Amino acid sequence: MAEEGAPKKRPGGRSARIHQAVLKSAFDELSKSGFRDFSIADVAARAGVHETSIYRRWGSREALALDASLHFADDAIAIPDTGVLKTDLMEIMQSAIRLLGTPRGQAMLALVELRDDNMQRLKRAYWRERFSRLRPVFDRAIKRGEFPADADPIIFLETLVAPLYFRLLVSMEAPSSWPLDEQVDRLLKAYVS
Amino acid sequence: MAEEGAPKKRPGGRSARIHQAVLKSAFDELSKSGFRDFSIADVAARAGVHETSIYRRWGSREALALDASLHFADDAIAIPDTGVLKTDLMEIMQSAIRLLGTPRGQAMLALVELRDDNMQRLKRAYWRERFSRLRPVFDRAIKRGEFPADADPIIFLETLVAPLYFRLLVSMEAPSSWPLDEQVDRLLKAYVS
Repeated sequence: MAEEGAPKKRPGGRSARIHQAVLKSAFDELSKSGFRDFSIADVAARAGVHETSIYRRWGSREALALDASLHFADDAIAIPDTGVLKTDLMEIMQSAIRLLGTPRGQAMLALVELRDDNMQRLKRAYWRERFSRLRPVFDRAIKRGEFPADADPIIFLETLVAPLYFRLLVSMEAPSSWPLDEQVDRLLKAYVS
Repeated sequence: MAEEGAPKKRPGGRSARIHQAVLKSAFDELSKSGFRDFSIADVAARAGVHETSIYRRWGSREALALDASLHFADDAIAIPDTGVLKTDLMEIMQSAIRLLGTPRGQAMLALVELRDDNMQRLKRAYWRERFSRLRPVFDRAIKRGEFPADADPIIFLETLVAPLYFRLLVSMEAPSSWPLDEQVDRLLKAYVS
């Protein structure tokens, strides 16, 4: 989804600028008033474009809300390359915790309510893409002998990141009290030794 | 919350029967039509009690929905004692996966939408209680030398159970493809060796 951020035909052109403006306006609307009051009419007014252009590209307010959220998540979470796997993982997790604590992060969490078939498909595609973008972190770690070549980095990442979402969405405990440093050490030990 | 399942004064009495009937009717209503259409009036009609009795005890439809869901989760997930920690953990996780795949489990997952302060407090209290009820599994494992006495069993359980919720609520991947057996082995290795 985030790859839609730069249209294929005219990168940097008018279409790209409008696309960015719509995503930014959509995210601002989401952060301001949440998904329940999120409307394509409001986004169109804020971005200064026609509603029909938005419908043509995104099809529904659900798809627009998801794309806008994910687009800004990609901006907020860089792919680290510190030379040490543990440090890379700590950076990823700290960025995620920081992001989810902001109004924008809260707007993203609220997308959990959207559970129809189409949204499920979009979310699945998004997370596969997000996780696979972090593969270089593990490819470099494998070369340095820090991660086994035959283990699945995606399963590892899911195990690492899931408790954060569990606390924010299910058990309502503070992510700040999660023993992150200790957990990264334990998981590395589980996979490496 | 589940401890409200048996009233203190007259266990097995009329009050207890009414309490059980309300929780069961509430859960049936939730499973039938989800939380958005969940009403105390419908629950009262189904259970054959006055709405005011329900309001008096639970205060709000949110609190009733949560209590009903958790009550049935407790029924569905027993505390195992197989004599081996890994087997106990597999039983806990398999019960959870089974439960979350049923209409009742889906109704419980839908509670994720209820995020006001009061619901957050109720959910936090519930999960603390749920996790602490599983402590005997770890106490027995510590005596058998299968789990370190200085590690936190709650953090261990959160790490184990979180990916299940992450898949069901966030990434929309199938919990059935999660490598549960392998993950339990890895986590035990992370804590024990």
